[in-house]
Amino acid sequence: MPNAKYDVVGIGNAIVDVLAHAEDSFLKSHGLVKGTMSLINSQAADKLYEEIEPTLECSGGSAANSIAALAVLGGRGAFIGKVCDDKLGAIFRKDIAALGIVFNSTPSRYSASTARCLILVTPDAQRTMQTYLGACVELGPDDIDENLIADSHITYLEGYLWDPPKAKEAFVKAAVVARKAGRKVALSLSDPLCVARHRDDFIDLVDNHVDILFANEAEITSLYQVSNFDAALQKVRGHCEIAALTRSAKGAVLISGDEVHVLDAEPLEKVVDTTGAGDAYAAGFFYGLVNGKSIYDCGRIGAIAAAEVIGHFGARPEVSLAKLVAKKLG
Amino acid sequence: MPNAKYDVVGIGNAIVDVLAHAEDSFLKSHGLVKGTMSLINSQAADKLYEEIEPTLECSGGSAANSIAALAVLGGRGAFIGKVCDDKLGAIFRKDIAALGIVFNSTPSRYSASTARCLILVTPDAQRTMQTYLGACVELGPDDIDENLIADSHITYLEGYLWDPPKAKEAFVKAAVVARKAGRKVALSLSDPLCVARHRDDFIDLVDNHVDILFANEAEITSLYQVSNFDAALQKVRGHCEIAALTRSAKGAVLISGDEVHVLDAEPLEKVVDTTGAGDAYAAGFFYGLVNGKSIYDCGRIGAIAAAEVIGHFGARPEVSLAKLVAKKLG
Repeated sequence: MPNAKYDVVGIGNAIVDVLAHAEDSFLKSHGLVKGTMSLINSQAADKLYEEIEPTLECSGGSAANSIAALAVLGGRGAFIGKVCDDKLGAIFRKDIAALGIVFNSTPSRYSASTARCLILVTPDAQRTMQTYLGACVELGPDDIDENLIADSHITYLEGYLWDPPKAKEAFVKAAVVARKAGRKVALSLSDPLCVARHRDDFIDLVDNHVDILFANEAEITSLYQVSNFDAALQKVRGHCEIAALTRSAKGAVLISGDEVHVLDAEPLEKVVDTTGAGDAYAAGFFYGLVNGKSIYDCGRIGAIAAAEVIGHFGARPEVSLAKLVAKKLG
Repeated sequence: MPNAKYDVVGIGNAIVDVLAHAEDSFLKSHGLVKGTMSLINSQAADKLYEEIEPTLECSGGSAANSIAALAVLGGRGAFIGKVCDDKLGAIFRKDIAALGIVFNSTPSRYSASTARCLILVTPDAQRTMQTYLGACVELGPDDIDENLIADSHITYLEGYLWDPPKAKEAFVKAAVVARKAGRKVALSLSDPLCVARHRDDFIDLVDNHVDILFANEAEITSLYQVSNFDAALQKVRGHCEIAALTRSAKGAVLISGDEVHVLDAEPLEKVVDTTGAGDAYAAGFFYGLVNGKSIYDCGRIGAIAAAEVIGHFGARPEVSLAKLVAKKLG
């Protein structure tokens, strides 16, 4: 890859995570679909917040988690996202800065507070998320720092960003700037319900703007409305340069041009909380890519990073991923 | 496919199976490697036979099992193999004829008796096989009925056939005749230890004689001496028209020209005995191929047939596979 000041610039919802344990019956009584993310308004967020017992509050957001994990791996990251000038916004900004990540987006000038994601972790380690987008809805094309995009090997867009109405334009603007600068554009499909909300837009993005696609099995089968993984695999081939299709315990299938790689899952020491697993996977994959690793090794680094995050509560790595990867890759 | 009198002609060791339950400790005390096949002489076969309590004696042999399963599916099969003119040989011949399979190979004129395979099934449903090849070692090029080969869509060769010394010539002769007649040649790698015994020959076969390759994960990684499945997948691509790489509970990966398909395992109602699972898989795959099914459906039919055989003791189907496949494929 040609030189760049940053490895990856992430564009996403700037969110503070509120994690709590929950039983399956709690999900059921609140009409929540396990493993997915739904959007709620501030009243619903306040109401739900009162019903749960938070065990952890920390900076989150899908693309922001990826950039954080990349930083822990030793990569150079930047982030574009919208917080409010409030207490949660300050927490988000402080956590990002502590990792050496560049984050210069102008805070929201409006009344909406910094976004929160209430994450309910069931005993099976699955996470079910309820997000109040708050200040995130203000993100628009003006927030896209064109120099930052052009200075980054990869511009990484989270699919969740398609939910706030003005962010779509920011999204496409960033992709066009990145491509014009000879850089790569990556997209995570984020969530099967998110895919269902924006299916046609996502298919258009994959076909016309995206070089590197991340999707899990539920997301990619939702994108192409097919009933099995292989059918989705056949659909996505040829539509982007790289597709990393993750399958939880079934491992991952990686497409890179004509190549197809079938990887097993990394052994998991323990499964505590899957929040942030996909985000860490993307980070590891990027770290491999910008360091010239094979596609197979990119997938393994992604899976090693994801396994670390799954092993504890919370979406961001707790150990030196760089050392862990060096040890496991051998 | 152009017209042919037979769907598949199998060439393999004509063996009578002797099945018995065994504990892992029994394998260990006899120095047997679980899941593999070893060759023994008649004295060792007699000795081991005395130590076990057979629960089932029936016609077996890898390619013969496949042709039997194909017949149960409704396919038209023929078999080439060497029995002795003895009691076990008569059993083998009777079972084959009962399924409507053409089997005209001349019986051995020498003293060696019909081959036996002592199959030890451990509580985990794995089978460990000890084979006395007996009359099988007489199979040679003269046994290859060229008209039968030319009259069959597919000539199917079991890798085990590389063990009896004269069979190699028969093997290559059949492959050349089949190709000359515009037919397809298929090979099963049979067993990781068999692959280790004949690695260079098998690589040459795959490169120069084989259109359709069947291998499980242990066999294909042994063939290319690589440490993970994906590395083997990369090695085999481009070396034969179709490769069906089976992975037990991890499903299968199918290569067909530029296509790569990733299939999940069929749900198993019960796991009783894996003897014959790979043979039934090949039969199902062939049945799909000669009936113009997609590669994906060929793999599913193979997996459905294998799942049936795994669900009971013994290597051959016990129900109407044709009905089962029709029901499950929908």
